[in-house]
Amino acid sequence: MKKYNFSAGPSILSPYTIENTAKGILNLNDSGLSVMEISHRSKDFIAILAEAQELFKELLRIPDGYSVLFLHGGASLQFAMIPYNYLNKKAAYLDTGTWAANAIKEAKLFGEVAVVGSSKDKIYNYIPKDYTVPADADYFHITTNNTIYGTEIKKDLDCKVPLIADMSSDIFSRPMDVSKYTMIYGGAQKNLAPAGVAFVIIKNDSLGKVDRAIPTMLSYATHIEKDSMFNTPPCLSIYAALHTLRWYKQIGGIEVMYKANLKKAALLYDEIERNKMFVANIPNVEDRSIMNVTFVMSEAYKEKEADFAKFASSLGIVGIAGHRSIGGFRASIYNAMPIETVAVLTNAMKEFESKN
Amino acid sequence: MKKYNFSAGPSILSPYTIENTAKGILNLNDSGLSVMEISHRSKDFIAILAEAQELFKELLRIPDGYSVLFLHGGASLQFAMIPYNYLNKKAAYLDTGTWAANAIKEAKLFGEVAVVGSSKDKIYNYIPKDYTVPADADYFHITTNNTIYGTEIKKDLDCKVPLIADMSSDIFSRPMDVSKYTMIYGGAQKNLAPAGVAFVIIKNDSLGKVDRAIPTMLSYATHIEKDSMFNTPPCLSIYAALHTLRWYKQIGGIEVMYKANLKKAALLYDEIERNKMFVANIPNVEDRSIMNVTFVMSEAYKEKEADFAKFASSLGIVGIAGHRSIGGFRASIYNAMPIETVAVLTNAMKEFESKN
Repeated sequence: MKKYNFSAGPSILSPYTIENTAKGILNLNDSGLSVMEISHRSKDFIAILAEAQELFKELLRIPDGYSVLFLHGGASLQFAMIPYNYLNKKAAYLDTGTWAANAIKEAKLFGEVAVVGSSKDKIYNYIPKDYTVPADADYFHITTNNTIYGTEIKKDLDCKVPLIADMSSDIFSRPMDVSKYTMIYGGAQKNLAPAGVAFVIIKNDSLGKVDRAIPTMLSYATHIEKDSMFNTPPCLSIYAALHTLRWYKQIGGIEVMYKANLKKAALLYDEIERNKMFVANIPNVEDRSIMNVTFVMSEAYKEKEADFAKFASSLGIVGIAGHRSIGGFRASIYNAMPIETVAVLTNAMKEFESKN
Repeated sequence: MKKYNFSAGPSILSPYTIENTAKGILNLNDSGLSVMEISHRSKDFIAILAEAQELFKELLRIPDGYSVLFLHGGASLQFAMIPYNYLNKKAAYLDTGTWAANAIKEAKLFGEVAVVGSSKDKIYNYIPKDYTVPADADYFHITTNNTIYGTEIKKDLDCKVPLIADMSSDIFSRPMDVSKYTMIYGGAQKNLAPAGVAFVIIKNDSLGKVDRAIPTMLSYATHIEKDSMFNTPPCLSIYAALHTLRWYKQIGGIEVMYKANLKKAALLYDEIERNKMFVANIPNVEDRSIMNVTFVMSEAYKEKEADFAKFASSLGIVGIAGHRSIGGFRASIYNAMPIETVAVLTNAMKEFESKN
C-alpha cells in the first residue's frame, strides 16, 4: 500500500533525494566506489561539499561575509554551542515551545538569560509579540517554527542585537533575508536531509567576543577556518542534502517552493475550518505554521479521535499523531510533500465527516 | 575498472552493508518508506537501534553494567566529552599520534594532564611501553590504533585507574576484554559505518564524579538515560552500522574476523620485508598495526615513489598515499577488505620490483 508520510521529523524527502542517495551508495559518479567509503578529502567528496554550500548560498541569497557549515550533533548541540561562542554576559531568548525551552536551559549554564517573552501559559499556542529585547543582550535567540505546537514566526524580525534563529523545521520553506541574522541553524531532518547533520549559516565577523576557552569541536571559528572539515564530516547526510538542494534549484527555487507551501497549508487549514469535526490548535491565523499543522477533534466529536486515527491509517496516512505533550493531530507538510498528498488527508477528513 | 579501496577512513565497507543500506533507503522492510524519512521514535527505527546495540554486546562480549551508545560528533567530540565527564583533577594520557595529541589538547582545557609517555620523538613510529600511570589519575586515555602512523596497542592493558580507549580504527578487529575498560569509543567510519556516528561503550556506574555543569548533549548520563535518543540520532549511519554488525555475526564473529585480519596483515608485511624496494615504517614488529600498514620506498629506490603510486593507480588501487604528515604509503586493510584485495597490492609490489 502506498504510504503518505506526514511525520514531523525525520520526515518526507523528495523522491529525487531518495533515489540519488541510494544510487551514490551503490556507485558514486560511476567511480566504482560507494559514497559511504570514500575519503572526505577525496576530490569527489570535496566537490559534493562545495556544491552543497554554493547551492545554500544561491537558494537563500546568502550575502557575502557568511559561511555555510555542515556540522555534527543536530540542533541540540547548537543549543550549547551558541552560548559557548556568543554569550558573554547576557542573552535574550523567546520561549515559544519545547525546543526553545531546551535552548534556554543550555544557555543558562553560560550566563544570564533574559526570557523576553513566553507562550507557555497557553501551551505554546501563540507567538508572543509584545516584548522588548534588552539593548545590552549579546544576542536574541528565536525558534522560527515550533514543530510540536504548530506555530511559526513567518517574517524576518528587525532586531537591534545579533539575531540567532533555530530554523530546523522551516528552512527553505520561504524566501528570507539572511542579512537580518547573525546566525541561522537547524537539524537537517525536515527540509534537507536524513538526520545526522546540522546546517549553520554564520556571519564570519560575529565571533571572538567571548573570553572562555572553547573546546575545538564546539568552536564555530574552528569549523569556519576548516570549512566543515575539522574532523570527518557526516558525509552521507551531506550527500543526501546536496540532492535536496539540487531539487530545489530544479523546481525553480525557494519562491516556487513558498507558493506551493502556501497552497498546501491553505488546503489543510481551510478543511479544518470547514469541517465540523475538527478545530485548529492555533487560534491566531497569523501564527499558524505552514510546515506543521496541528488540530484536534472539535468538542462534540472528542470521542472520535481514535476512530479518525484508525481511518486515516487504513488509507496509508502515517505520522499524524500529535506530539505526546499536546495530543490530537499534527500533519507535517514539509517542502517535499506534494499537494496531492495533502489532498489525501483533507479527503479523508471529508469522508470521515460524511460518515459521522 | 574495479577499484581496490585502501582508504584510511571513510573506508571500505562490506558489500552486504552497502547493498542493504541502499535497499533500506529505497524501501525499508517493505514499508513503502525510506529509512531516511521515518521517525526515530517509530517501531521500525527503535528495532534497528536495539538490534545494533544487542549485536555490539554479543560480538564484543560486553559484560552487564555497560551501555552501548550511538552519538553524534565523531571521535573528535569525544575528546572534549571525556574530560567534561571524567576529569576532576588530573588525567593521564599516552601520546601515540596526532589523534592522541588532539585528545590531550582538549583535556587540558578541563584540568591537569599527565602525558605519561610519548613517541613523538620518533614521529610516532613506536608504542611507548616504559611509563607509569599516576595512581591518583581520574583515568588513563589511550589510542589503541594510530591510523596515521600504523602502530597499534594489540592487547587490553591492565590499568589501576579507569582505562579509556579510542578504538576508532581497530574496534571489531580482534576479540577483546571489555571489562578492562571504563569506556571505549570511536568514530564509525572504519570498521562499522559511514562517517556521522560515534560508538561509545561505557560503564554505567563510572559517571557522576565531577562537579562541573555539563551541557546536556555533552553528558554521557543524558545519553545513557535516554538510550541514545535524547535528540534525533544519526539514524542512517546507525542503520548502515546494523548491517555491518549483522555481517560480522554471519561470518562467525570477531574471532573469525581476527584470524582473517592476521593473515591479511602477514601477507602485506611479509611482502614489504621480502621486497627490496620497500621498507616498513614501523621498525618494531610488535607495534605494527594490523589495520593500517605504513611503508616507504627503501633508501636505494626513494625516487621511485611517484612511479609506484602511478603504477598502483593504473591497477585500480586507490587510497594508498601515506598521510601528508609522514608521506610514503599507507594501506588500510580494515575488516571489510578481503585478502584477495590485499593480494592485488602485494602482486603489484612484486611486479613493480621485477620491472625495476
